[in-house]
This record gives sequence, structure tokens and C-alpha cells, in this order.
Amino acid sequence: MRIRDAEPADWPAIWPFFRTITAAGDTYAYPRDLTSEQGREGWMLSAPGRTVVAVDEDGTVLGSAKMNPNQGGGGSHVASASYMVAPEHAGRGIGRALGEHTLAWARAEGYRGMQFNAVVEANVRAVALWRSLGFEVIGTVPEGFRLPDGSYTGLHVMYQAL
Amino acid sequence: MRIRDAEPADWPAIWPFFRTITAAGDTYAYPRDLTSEQGREGWMLSAPGRTVVAVDEDGTVLGSAKMNPNQGGGGSHVASASYMVAPEHAGRGIGRALGEHTLAWARAEGYRGMQFNAVVEANVRAVALWRSLGFEVIGTVPEGFRLPDGSYTGLHVMYQAL
Repeated sequence: MRIRDAEPADWPAIWPFFRTITAAGDTYAYPRDLTSEQGREGWMLSAPGRTVVAVDEDGTVLGSAKMNPNQGGGGSHVASASYMVAPEHAGRGIGRALGEHTLAWARAEGYRGMQFNAVVEANVRAVALWRSLGFEVIGTVPEGFRLPDGSYTGLHVMYQAL
Repeated sequence: MRIRDAEPADWPAIWPFFRTITAAGDTYAYPRDLTSEQGREGWMLSAPGRTVVAVDEDGTVLGSAKMNPNQGGGGSHVASASYMVAPEHAGRGIGRALGEHTLAWARAEGYRGMQFNAVVEANVRAVALWRSLGFEVIGTVPEGFRLPDGSYTGLHVMYQAL
């Protein structure tokens, strides 16, 4: 597996798992009915943001990440990032590799920290992964996320200094 | 003073203080060099968001607020809001009135909470105002905001259940 910059031509390979993940509605605070065009606009970033894909030896897209300044102006020295891994390729360390890649990018770009604004508390594997990469929960919006079954869980703000 | 829905024709009256506040760079994590067009696009919201103006008896625009869902999908039951008061009208309770108005709107629209994502810790008057309206600091991004003098201050995440 390697990680490279995403190109416009990669979107048709990202969209199937992007759609599956957003439609499931249990891990991302995105509308569940995003169209391909809306998804593409939100995910495929240009500078100062960046979008990458993780691909295997034969070029199959396994996952993707986007990274960007989390705020503008006086807040633009803190980066943020988002990640999606194709469900059929879960458990292969792709999320971890993408996480490490985005942290390396943020350090190289001179960001002083990385912040995730909305990590679903019930998504315990993601929370554990980000903790293992150095992030801490610095606050939780109580009942900030409604799961598809109608129950509520917290939305973590996670952060690490770089 | 009364608070009413903003109309497109209000933007020329909002822009002077919007520009002053964003160019100062000490209270908002917005780019400091936003154009009028960029400011208008970001501030003048349509449904499900909403933008209001506070006006005095002769129609002078004293301040403005925008309000919107803070996240999409499973996070769309938590509102957010932003406020700007013309500096020459500070100290008249306009920020407080706008804050109360947005909270009433959020309750009426059925939101379960209101969240501010990025309140500058050094903006002690704003932090005190939001506390007095029921918000609590639920987390702080350490050194999340760079002040114009080059020093760093925290960025608070503030929240209250509705």
C-alpha cells in the first residue's frame, strides 16, 4: 500500500465507500443523503488543503484522507483531517497509515497542532486509534451525535500538539 | 432596539463593522482579509440557517448574528451561532440581546443544544457574556488562536443544552 495525492479521476473510486459510510450515518456528522457532486466538493480539497488516497499494488483505492486548516485567521496554525476507509478493506491498518500520513503532512507544513472537531464517542475503534496516534479528548459535546437507532452519543473534540 | 431577519439589502450596513472586526483579527478565527463578497457569502445564511440584525429606532444596524446547525447528519440537532456588534455601539447590551435571540430561535426550532466552536480565550468579555447566558467551556484548544501581537491564547469550545 502507498499513499499519494488524490487526483480528480480518483473520485469515482472514492465515492462508493464515501457513500456507504455517510449513508450509514453512524460515524460522520455529514448529511446522510449527500450526492456524489456534494461529496466531491467537500472531500477533494485544493491548497492549503490536501486530499490523498491509499492504494494497493494494483492501484485499487483502499481509503482516503483530507487535511486542511481547521480555522482561518488566528486559528489557521491548527490543522484538521478526516478519513475514510473502504469497509471491505478494514482491519488492514489503512486508517492508521492515513492518520500517520496526515500528521506528517501537518508537521511538514508547520502546523502547531491537529484537531478533530467531531469524533463520534460510540465509534470506539476510531477513538482508540486516534488516542494511539497521540490525540487526546479535550472536550465532549454531550449527546452531540444521534445514532441511526435514535440514541445519542457524545461528540469528542480531539487534539494533539505537533 | 429590535432584532429582525436580515435582508440582502442589509449587507452594506453590516460590512463596515464585519470588516473592522475581522481585520482586527483578535476575536474571530476568520481570514483577516475577507472581501465583502466572501463575508456576505459566509454571514448571510439561508434556511436551515438564519441571519438577523439588531436595529435602533431609526433603522441603524447595530449588530448582527447568524445561526445554523453546527454539524450535518447525526450532529444536526445542535445549533451554533456567531455575533458581531458595531464597535461604536458596544456596551449597550446588543451582544446579549443577540445571544438571547439566537437561543430562543434554537429552542423554537427544536435544537437540543447550542455550541460555539471557537471562542477566543483572551476575549474575556465574550467568554463572560456567554457564561452568563448559560454556556460552559467544555474544552479548550491550547494555544489554538494566535493574536495579532504574535502571542497565543486558547480557543474555547462552549456549549449549553437547551
